[in-house]
Amino acid sequence: MPKVVCLGEIMLRLSAEAGVRLQQTQQLEVFYGGGEANVAVSLANYGHQVQFVSKVAENGFGQAAEQHLRSYGVATDYLLKADGRLGTYFVEQGTSQRATSVIYDRQDSVFARMTEPEWELATLFNKTDLFHVSGITPALSPQWQTLTLELIRAAKSAGCKVSFDCNYRQNLWSQSEAANFLKKVLPLVDYCSAGKLDAIHLLGIPEAGTDITYYYQKMQELFPNIEAFYSTNRIVHSTCINELQGTLWLNGSCYTSKNHLIDPIIDRIGGGDAFSGGTLHGLLKGFSPEEVIEFATAAAVLKHSVKGDCNQFNESEVLQFSKSNSAAIKR
Amino acid sequence: MPKVVCLGEIMLRLSAEAGVRLQQTQQLEVFYGGGEANVAVSLANYGHQVQFVSKVAENGFGQAAEQHLRSYGVATDYLLKADGRLGTYFVEQGTSQRATSVIYDRQDSVFARMTEPEWELATLFNKTDLFHVSGITPALSPQWQTLTLELIRAAKSAGCKVSFDCNYRQNLWSQSEAANFLKKVLPLVDYCSAGKLDAIHLLGIPEAGTDITYYYQKMQELFPNIEAFYSTNRIVHSTCINELQGTLWLNGSCYTSKNHLIDPIIDRIGGGDAFSGGTLHGLLKGFSPEEVIEFATAAAVLKHSVKGDCNQFNESEVLQFSKSNSAAIKR
Amino acid sequence: MPKVVCLGEIMLRLSAEAGVRLQQTQQLEVFYGGGEANVAVSLANYGHQVQFVSKVAENGFGQAAEQHLRSYGVATDYLLKADGRLGTYFVEQGTSQRATSVIYDRQDSVFARMTEPEWELATLFNKTDLFHVSGITPALSPQWQTLTLELIRAAKSAGCKVSFDCNYRQNLWSQSEAANFLKKVLPLVDYCSAGKLDAIHLLGIPEAGTDITYYYQKMQELFPNIEAFYSTNRIVHSTCINELQGTLWLNGSCYTSKNHLIDPIIDRIGGGDAFSGGTLHGLLKGFSPEEVIEFATAAAVLKHSVKGDCNQFNESEVLQFSKSNSAAIKR
Amino acid sequence: MPKVVCLGEIMLRLSAEAGVRLQQTQQLEVFYGGGEANVAVSLANYGHQVQFVSKVAENGFGQAAEQHLRSYGVATDYLLKADGRLGTYFVEQGTSQRATSVIYDRQDSVFARMTEPEWELATLFNKTDLFHVSGITPALSPQWQTLTLELIRAAKSAGCKVSFDCNYRQNLWSQSEAANFLKKVLPLVDYCSAGKLDAIHLLGIPEAGTDITYYYQKMQELFPNIEAFYSTNRIVHSTCINELQGTLWLNGSCYTSKNHLIDPIIDRIGGGDAFSGGTLHGLLKGFSPEEVIEFATAAAVLKHSVKGDCNQFNESEVLQFSKSNSAAIKR
Amino acid sequence: MPKVVCLGEIMLRLSAEAGVRLQQTQQLEVFYGGGEANVAVSLANYGHQVQFVSKVAENGFGQAAEQHLRSYGVATDYLLKADGRLGTYFVEQGTSQRATSVIYDRQDSVFARMTEPEWELATLFNKTDLFHVSGITPALSPQWQTLTLELIRAAKSAGCKVSFDCNYRQNLWSQSEAANFLKKVLPLVDYCSAGKLDAIHLLGIPEAGTDITYYYQKMQELFPNIEAFYSTNRIVHSTCINELQGTLWLNGSCYTSKNHLIDPIIDRIGGGDAFSGGTLHGLLKGFSPEEVIEFATAAAVLKHSVKGDCNQFNESEVLQFSKSNSAAIKR
Amino acid sequence: MPKVVCLGEIMLRLSAEAGVRLQQTQQLEVFYGGGEANVAVSLANYGHQVQFVSKVAENGFGQAAEQHLRSYGVATDYLLKADGRLGTYFVEQGTSQRATSVIYDRQDSVFARMTEPEWELATLFNKTDLFHVSGITPALSPQWQTLTLELIRAAKSAGCKVSFDCNYRQNLWSQSEAANFLKKVLPLVDYCSAGKLDAIHLLGIPEAGTDITYYYQKMQELFPNIEAFYSTNRIVHSTCINELQGTLWLNGSCYTSKNHLIDPIIDRIGGGDAFSGGTLHGLLKGFSPEEVIEFATAAAVLKHSVKGDCNQFNESEVLQFSKSNSAAIKR
Repeated sequence: MPKVVCLGEIMLRLSAEAGVRLQQTQQLEVFYGGGEANVAVSLANYGHQVQFVSKVAENGFGQAAEQHLRSYGVATDYLLKADGRLGTYFVEQGTSQRATSVIYDRQDSVFARMTEPEWELATLFNKTDLFHVSGITPALSPQWQTLTLELIRAAKSAGCKVSFDCNYRQNLWSQSEAANFLKKVLPLVDYCSAGKLDAIHLLGIPEAGTDITYYYQKMQELFPNIEAFYSTNRIVHSTCINELQGTLWLNGSCYTSKNHLIDPIIDRIGGGDAFSGGTLHGLLKGFSPEEVIEFATAAAVLKHSVKGDCNQFNESEVLQFSKSNSAAIKR
Repeated sequence: MPKVVCLGEIMLRLSAEAGVRLQQTQQLEVFYGGGEANVAVSLANYGHQVQFVSKVAENGFGQAAEQHLRSYGVATDYLLKADGRLGTYFVEQGTSQRATSVIYDRQDSVFARMTEPEWELATLFNKTDLFHVSGITPALSPQWQTLTLELIRAAKSAGCKVSFDCNYRQNLWSQSEAANFLKKVLPLVDYCSAGKLDAIHLLGIPEAGTDITYYYQKMQELFPNIEAFYSTNRIVHSTCINELQGTLWLNGSCYTSKNHLIDPIIDRIGGGDAFSGGTLHGLLKGFSPEEVIEFATAAAVLKHSVKGDCNQFNESEVLQFSKSNSAAIKR
Repeated sequence: MPKVVCLGEIMLRLSAEAGVRLQQTQQLEVFYGGGEANVAVSLANYGHQVQFVSKVAENGFGQAAEQHLRSYGVATDYLLKADGRLGTYFVEQGTSQRATSVIYDRQDSVFARMTEPEWELATLFNKTDLFHVSGITPALSPQWQTLTLELIRAAKSAGCKVSFDCNYRQNLWSQSEAANFLKKVLPLVDYCSAGKLDAIHLLGIPEAGTDITYYYQKMQELFPNIEAFYSTNRIVHSTCINELQGTLWLNGSCYTSKNHLIDPIIDRIGGGDAFSGGTLHGLLKGFSPEEVIEFATAAAVLKHSVKGDCNQFNESEVLQFSKSNSAAIKR
Repeated sequence: MPKVVCLGEIMLRLSAEAGVRLQQTQQLEVFYGGGEANVAVSLANYGHQVQFVSKVAENGFGQAAEQHLRSYGVATDYLLKADGRLGTYFVEQGTSQRATSVIYDRQDSVFARMTEPEWELATLFNKTDLFHVSGITPALSPQWQTLTLELIRAAKSAGCKVSFDCNYRQNLWSQSEAANFLKKVLPLVDYCSAGKLDAIHLLGIPEAGTDITYYYQKMQELFPNIEAFYSTNRIVHSTCINELQGTLWLNGSCYTSKNHLIDPIIDRIGGGDAFSGGTLHGLLKGFSPEEVIEFATAAAVLKHSVKGDCNQFNESEVLQFSKSNSAAIKR
Repeated sequence: MPKVVCLGEIMLRLSAEAGVRLQQTQQLEVFYGGGEANVAVSLANYGHQVQFVSKVAENGFGQAAEQHLRSYGVATDYLLKADGRLGTYFVEQGTSQRATSVIYDRQDSVFARMTEPEWELATLFNKTDLFHVSGITPALSPQWQTLTLELIRAAKSAGCKVSFDCNYRQNLWSQSEAANFLKKVLPLVDYCSAGKLDAIHLLGIPEAGTDITYYYQKMQELFPNIEAFYSTNRIVHSTCINELQGTLWLNGSCYTSKNHLIDPIIDRIGGGDAFSGGTLHGLLKGFSPEEVIEFATAAAVLKHSVKGDCNQFNESEVLQFSKSNSAAIKR
Repeated sequence: MPKVVCLGEIMLRLSAEAGVRLQQTQQLEVFYGGGEANVAVSLANYGHQVQFVSKVAENGFGQAAEQHLRSYGVATDYLLKADGRLGTYFVEQGTSQRATSVIYDRQDSVFARMTEPEWELATLFNKTDLFHVSGITPALSPQWQTLTLELIRAAKSAGCKVSFDCNYRQNLWSQSEAANFLKKVLPLVDYCSAGKLDAIHLLGIPEAGTDITYYYQKMQELFPNIEAFYSTNRIVHSTCINELQGTLWLNGSCYTSKNHLIDPIIDRIGGGDAFSGGTLHGLLKGFSPEEVIEFATAAAVLKHSVKGDCNQFNESEVLQFSKSNSAAIKR
């Protein structure tokens, strides 16, 4: 199986039970996750050799983050530990029309405070097929913008493909900051998760209806080096009821998955990462474009049915779900 | 901010988990609430100075009821304590088509056994803008009918407005008892929560279709002193799925909120109190009639999304929800 | 009230919380159930004198299974105990489009290993009106096929009616094994739970559309001795949303209940047993055919609203639900 | 095995977790118990045929109380149901030097409000060997004093032995009321649980040191009809650490069990009832006096190691514990 | 009752269950506390009018901290809110010989980042009898050293007494930093919590045996302005078993409480604050020195028996415990 | 760090809460463990490269067992999966004088049913320093006796040391069966965990007092090839209170650790495995004999303070605990 390196921050997630506000709650459920870490877990579940490259706190929570990754078979040879804090986020789950809200408490984490690569770049990408990183990482600090580019260049030099998930977060940087960075990074990227809103607000493509094909085409014109673009179209009926459909742009064609109704949603966080993980798996494994997008969307839908940030399903479970026509009890 | 006095019984509520019958359950969740207490909490959340006037048991549960009120900033200077029991009610949550059912165990509570005002009426309503009480209180005993009228008259004398929520409970008194009391109390009332069923069954207004305007008009004719009538129209698709729409009668016009679909409902108890709290806030704060009814209905809808009897949202959260068009995750 | 004997295996059921996979879970909820045991509990809830005939492990779990049965008033005079293990099954609850799945770990249980009747057959069916058993029992072993027939013959000799629920389980025996057994057992049966799939795959009736009447008629032709056939038609929109309708074939006519939408489902396991329990109660008590099928279907629907395998509702609660038009809160 | 009738009130018990005060707690654990009900469960566990005679509320809690009794094999043929409330008590568990405290909320329960025997006395004690009741029952009301005597006389007439546990509760009646009643009841009693404090404060025996033999002798002089007296000597080092030793007065001799150190105590409530249950079992089964008191004390000690009011151990488990010298893990 | 102002940081506390390490835990219990906040709650429980002066995050956790304080009747008129984070700490409970450990994550909290008084000092101490602050506050930053002195001077000017709890925390500042600050602050202090270790390591008093009287005398010589010194002597047998004894130095005499064995300890955090709260209450209320030290030590012991940072007992409960000789169940 | 191979069965463990019997419990806590798996986790925690060699069920529980091992960094390259069941055991936790009891349900697990080595023996022990197995494995079946010897011989051939923990389980095989096997295996062993009872009952050494030195000497005479013997001396005061002391026989001398009082015990299961893990670590790392035995005993004591079978502490934490003199809170 191909070897993959994912880099990013892994955080402590603390969630109140659905129907209980943060100010009411007397207990919080503990999870660990982060955009790239969730992709790493998905790819390890599918059988890839995955290294997760990051830095965590030298305490029980940093150790738990490592145990979380290892439990799914993600290698942690490049997971540094240092005194300091682990980035944290709190989730107040919405319900019905009330939206879920997230409070980030990630400033000054040991990861966010990094200023230079502390891993041996010479060997990091040895025999690696794919390097995956998301737009959350450069958004953490100006130093991380520099570092992200430096790492991507090292990966390219080592002959490995680069995957980049735009993952724009408005509370971390402005649209113009993100746009500036994208201009620098996208010429180095092979696989890119980006949708209509990224196209318009970050890449300056004029709005023109809702057909995603148009936006993919325009992005492809700007970055002819990119092999594949992908994104989901999500219709939010309520916090608990969404529709989800995936799209993939590959070799000048747009492929669309079947549309899934998700009712009810158990945990929406990590849905996009499960979609990225599924897409990258399909691309690495040489699925047909139709197979890639059905697999990726099925993976994303399944993620909504389990608690926690990361996908808990292996390749055969995702395939079986993708092809199944019934939710009848299995016994 | 205006000063408000709410009077009524606050009870211990013990609920089994959804999907578990009372006879199956090995644990009960603990909440505190009551019609007027829930309104008091809503108004305190919106920034009003609120006194909750009542009497509780001199034990851990009475103390917890007091702590519950204080935690939301409701003042408890007039919350008496005495040996005896706190009124209690048990909730077996329904699901799907099975209805939620409530077992009351509130007889002989220290509040229900009161026979005369034990608060200093001379100062109770000093500088108070609004006195709120509901039909549950006079339903507790003949003495409480007398007491309720005495308190309302004291409030009027002190120059404060009177709010009355009909809140008819068939297991506490008969329709004719309630009708008799309403004839005495409504001439003293300024704001009144009453709907079609109250109009027909308690006020003797002939049934004539479903248009609430007709009933408001007839009630207004009977009680020209009342400034505002308000109520909700609830369509019960199932225990978990309801539609809710609020209406307000003010100055001879009827105002209707947008219709909300609530799916799923986390906890329906206290929805009406949240609606009263929202309406009174809007009226006290001088919102336009349209703003009043949208705010009140949004507050009621939000209540259905959290556990416990009382609304957990402040003014800006209700306004934001009222105006929002999306339940997308906030991060 | 009539006296009923039910025979079958009762198992330990261990369930993970909805939204949590078996590999994630740090705790499992404990229930006890089995096809015939669930019918026994239903009938005891409705006021029948019920004996549950089985064999359990001589340990805390065997004792708990007995306590479970006794708590509903099911008599356990014929519940044997022996060293060995209690059959166990694990439930991973699905959600949305992801199906619930069941892992059986029931081999070599003290019940499955029985090779001869260890109860005194001479008295077992004394003054008994009905003997109920399901197709799961003979599927456990060749010995249990012999034993099941032997018990049914003893019941017939004692003058009691025989109820048989086909309950085909593909992981226990093949369709041809089951078909062979059915040919032997059905000529001895009075009431039979069997539907379209049983008719086609086990009884060799040619497929011909979806109308259940046709299949009932053909089965009746094969087994003219059978007084009543019954089954449900379930439309699975998702794991959490099903429609359910019951049908009863009696005296050459087919009776159909109203159609119920169940949204959301709390626990689908035991729904079929609740339907059987309701049907048998109606037949034993002499309800009209229309009353039988409405009662049975209402019982099945109610079961979906509570956790655990067995129905928690008595006759008057089922009747009230069956006739109710509203899920409004009861207080 | 002998047949036993126990009569008394069974209550809903709601307990907060150890280390959490009632005013802090957000959930309460649910148990069912009462002095005589706990004895009934113990005796059923030891293999006796036991009827529990009482009256409970016609709601989910009354049903749960019945299910609780039945689950241990206690027959409930004489358990009446009626509209009203089930007596309730709340437990705040102490720890270290802080004492456990109990809040009773049992007034006006359907049992406490009984004024005449609603069971058919003619058949109630048919073929019964023992009738057990405690001093809690007559303490509930003057009517219950009359009723208790009436029931005891009916039992004597039917030729059955009478067991009476003094169980003085200061919050239910005064010492002089209790003393008056004891004078009437004890001449009818065969087995009596009473200790030094009962002797001094209720029976007027002058205090004279700590030797229980003296008090037994004096009580025997007052009531020569009583065959056996028994009680425990408990040294309270702290809420969690007690020493316990049982004593039995039989045929003019006093028998003493070995002394048990209990550290830590899981749940102290029901310890005395387990002791009574053990003593009555030994007496009914014809154990030697030494065996009776070792068995009863071992049963009481075991009760302290499990949650809930009632003993969860059968005869062989109690015997094994009584004779064991080690708490080493069993595997 | 006297009016008290307490100032300090209130934090979110997240605790794993006893016996579960932080890296194992899947849930964390939520509490709120801080040295001065805990004293504020104690004093409010005893009937004082207490203002808690601080700054919290403008989010659900800040609101919960406010609700926590208000629920005990502590006024929050001077509790500021601002965007940012609430200081947090994590507790891994030890057991047996393994120590409890605490991870602080309180840097950059909205409180720690304050640089100038944001409260109106002119009115803050109006009609106030006592201002209480601890050594944790100046340890947060150099700015907070300045601020603490400024606030204490304002309090003195307003004629109010000053209470200071040394509360040295080695992970916040060095001994020499603390010593420097103490030299400045202690000349302004009236009541001081300081023990043998503070005397030796922070005040430079030569070590001379274990008799606390010597250290009090020396500290009194250094700071003749201080009216009372107090501290506890704790013998740590294990994490769960401690002995605790309180001492008070007043008017040149040393008063010692009885020695308490605490076994087991439920939650040791906040024990010292409960002791301070008890001492200050006794001094404010004019208890005799013997009464002060018995009350304060009893309060500290009781705190060890409940979960969470703050004492849950009122004056009469502490007095009753202090005088009680038995942990027998109260019913 | 040295490379270690551990082989044995890993099981699903399901535990009821302390104070709750298996027949009472409505939920079970989930853990994974087994003698050799627990040693593997300990050694991985201490920094060794560890392979765990076994076979688990191809379902969620088998996957969870793998995730458990991986989370601690134990490699699972040789962890086979197959259809079938995972061995299971149930724990009813005792308390005070009541012993903890274990119910095994491990027959016919995929591991127990193995009949030949399914791993490539040629490479399994490549560059391995130590092979660890326990007496539980050959006790599973006659085939496993053959297999165990075959594996040990392969390990010896590959030049690696062999560690064997006698771990006699009476419910798996008789003393004479075990004795026969030990005669065959011990001549191949380098490090052996065996104590006084093993010496007497399995190795036929005549009982002669309590001094462990005598037994070690005799065992050494029988098996001069064994480099080290080790065992603990445990004094069971109660289920919750034990004393523990470790002993090591090395080069003809006996080394004894300090004696630890453990009060209270959170979870005793796995204590012996933690001791073996600690001893092997010390021997592999070249600690002095005194250091080995202090480290191993400290590790065993720490294990008693955490839930679950396996030790959660790394080398520095064990060393720190071993040298610490205080259980005072760390902050």
